Amino acid sequence: MKQWLDEVPWDAQGLIPVVTQDFASGRVLTLAWMNREALKKTVEAGEAVYWSRSRGKLWRKGEESGHAQKVREVRLDCDADAILLRVEQVGGIACHTGRESCFFRKLENGRWMTVDPVLKDPSLIYGK
Amino acid sequence: MKQWLDEVPWDAQGLIPVVTQDFASGRVLTLAWMNREALKKTVEAGEAVYWSRSRGKLWRKGEESGHAQKVREVRLDCDADAILLRVEQVGGIACHTGRESCFFRKLENGRWMTVDPVLKDPSLIYGK
Repeated sequence: MKQWLDEVPWDAQGLIPVVTQDFASGRVLTLAWMNREALKKTVEAGEAVYWSRSRGKLWRKGEESGHAQKVREVRLDCDADAILLRVEQVGGIACHTGRESCFFRKLENGRWMTVDPVLKDPSLIYGK
Repeated sequence: MKQWLDEVPWDAQGLIPVVTQDFASGRVLTLAWMNREALKKTVEAGEAVYWSRSRGKLWRKGEESGHAQKVREVRLDCDADAILLRVEQVGGIACHTGRESCFFRKLENGRWMTVDPVLKDPSLIYGK
């Protein structure tokens, strides 16, 4: 029987883009990437694990910040080239800048304006 | 002055992934791609224009189906490698299968299960 992981058409780098959305607020929190192992671990553990393209390794969301993402739903799109995670965002903060969502800049009159507040100082999150 | 379009770090193919969300319902509708021209046209026209990777051309959402996406907000994420569009989805249908969202399959007990209804028969949408 074909396994569900085999139905994901991993790209040339073995990755798929993953949209993560807060289950309660509906806010789109992040766009990140997974490889096969990351998706397997995410489903097994019930917490989001991504592939960091910049660091070239698996990255359990919240491993440093404590802001883990508890998975409520995993969805696949019609042409199977993207995944949607619906999660409970621990701490209500997904972004390393201390904001709820990474999408905190909005285009206004030809400029990217920061429109969302910092909920917690990143130096307090990361202890640096 | 640096233009807002220049602040988007287009990838090696000149593209950026775009998450599109229904402004009213909060549903994540699609993940698609834009190049510089698509983003420029989207903002100028106030309706989503994507780059079709499979067809290798610009594609105004709804050009065949009538299911255009009226742009309410354009957002950029913290590391500027993804865009979020918040839109009014004309007809309430984003997917070519006649469903509200392209993310209509949900992982349940190791299987991708179709969990959302077809709202309109695609043969009626596309007249084929």
